[in-house]
Amino acid sequence: MTTPPPAVHPTLNLAPLADQVQTYLHAFLQEQAISPQFHQALQYALLAPGKRLRPALTLLTAQAITTQNTQAIIPAAAIEMIHCFSLIHDDLPAMDDDDLRRGRPTLHKKYDQATAILAGDILQSLAFQLINTQLPQALALPISNILATATSDMILGQVYDTLHDFPQDLTDIQKLELIHHNKTGALIIAACQMGAVTAHATPQQFNAITNYAQAIGLMFQIVDDILDITQSTQQLGKTAGKDIQQNKLTYPALIGLAASKHKISQLQDDAHQALSIFPKPPQTLSQLIDALATRQK
Amino acid sequence: MTTPPPAVHPTLNLAPLADQVQTYLHAFLQEQAISPQFHQALQYALLAPGKRLRPALTLLTAQAITTQNTQAIIPAAAIEMIHCFSLIHDDLPAMDDDDLRRGRPTLHKKYDQATAILAGDILQSLAFQLINTQLPQALALPISNILATATSDMILGQVYDTLHDFPQDLTDIQKLELIHHNKTGALIIAACQMGAVTAHATPQQFNAITNYAQAIGLMFQIVDDILDITQSTQQLGKTAGKDIQQNKLTYPALIGLAASKHKISQLQDDAHQALSIFPKPPQTLSQLIDALATRQK
Repeated sequence: MTTPPPAVHPTLNLAPLADQVQTYLHAFLQEQAISPQFHQALQYALLAPGKRLRPALTLLTAQAITTQNTQAIIPAAAIEMIHCFSLIHDDLPAMDDDDLRRGRPTLHKKYDQATAILAGDILQSLAFQLINTQLPQALALPISNILATATSDMILGQVYDTLHDFPQDLTDIQKLELIHHNKTGALIIAACQMGAVTAHATPQQFNAITNYAQAIGLMFQIVDDILDITQSTQQLGKTAGKDIQQNKLTYPALIGLAASKHKISQLQDDAHQALSIFPKPPQTLSQLIDALATRQK
Repeated sequence: MTTPPPAVHPTLNLAPLADQVQTYLHAFLQEQAISPQFHQALQYALLAPGKRLRPALTLLTAQAITTQNTQAIIPAAAIEMIHCFSLIHDDLPAMDDDDLRRGRPTLHKKYDQATAILAGDILQSLAFQLINTQLPQALALPISNILATATSDMILGQVYDTLHDFPQDLTDIQKLELIHHNKTGALIIAACQMGAVTAHATPQQFNAITNYAQAIGLMFQIVDDILDITQSTQQLGKTAGKDIQQNKLTYPALIGLAASKHKISQLQDDAHQALSIFPKPPQTLSQLIDALATRQK
């Protein structure tokens, strides 16, 4: 199993959380009665080195709310499966048509398109199976609900981004917000909310975590937009410069680089502000804000 | 809304059930905040005329077990969404590459491949959303569990059928059984089981319904295999002769037409036998066995 690279931050090290998720996903896949080559394809896609931001958010959120052991690893693994499914389908030739993901050939390049379509499909159903079968009843339904809604929203984000099919009469900036809120925001918000639910958050804590997640979700995507034009393909592990090439709506394209950086700074403040309801703001969630704002890949 | 054609049987008329499902699905889609063109694409695929066998099974099973009103329409609609998702992805050029479905152009021919990929994806997540949000808590979890497991199994059936990726050391007939049990059987069994659960079936009733569903599920697929070689494209509403063209494992190809028909007859008996635990075998489920055995499309 390849250890994913740590997030770039002086004190925050997400690698142990990523390892924990990796181990869980590996074991979960092993338990499934899946034919040999397809199993390898799923492993290739799901266990590829990565930041594992979404599952880390689920785990860190749960830890921020309670010192008790939680079962947050289960929704953490499930959201990584949904994220992985979205990447596999997004990379297909009929979608964003990308050859490179996490520094390696995309799944349809390594195997074929049929494998990639079916791998994405089954990662979605396996994610719900995981939640339904592994979490206690009282948690399974609310968690499954958060995940299903976020998955639909994420797919709608792809519809906006890929098909350019929007509700009527939106300005470009409204279209962009709609893309980002759904395509990236939905899963990041769900990741944090599921962590909060497994930790039995109070409604006030749940709302604070939701506000935090909304801010870092949008910030994450604006940083992504900027990295796409400022970093190399080698640095990113995925094809750089795709947004301009595909004429995508992005923050730098719409409001310029300086205003985009200012917006990131505002969202950093919003995220820190959201955490202020905690008597002692959770250090890891706080550090993560700044790590995400300054990440280089 | 187009009324689907009735099933071919002298006394059993599935059209009213199909209409009920159609109306429910139409209303459910209307409630979703989905951008205009994508909404049309989903309507085109999901509300296409069809037998609506799987949702009809959910409704008929529930009615066979209880005379009380049940909420079986919810899992009935959900399983049709999963079935529709599987057809959309199965028709893609990288999969079975089909231009015709239910007598009309397939979704990727009518729209494009990106729309078809995303439509399949969101029909899966919407199916789980529907169950999570519309069923009472005590039903939502077991129903979601049946649906998620069946969906994974159905996708594995596609893996066997499309990628020819099997567990080691299987004979051709074992491979064929594995394809059929998963690709077609899983959703038909789940359809009946979900109907039974919404009707609060006893364990004995649940087992009988499962046995019934296993028999008619396999029978349905063998009939499908035969129709593919004996009927015209116009009659089927989908491309005839595909199995031979794509060198698929089928019952007629492996054991011949006569033995396939004999197998159908055996499975008819098995299905009737399964219903014998009911003091008065449910007439509609009983009629459906013979309707499916003798269907011409």
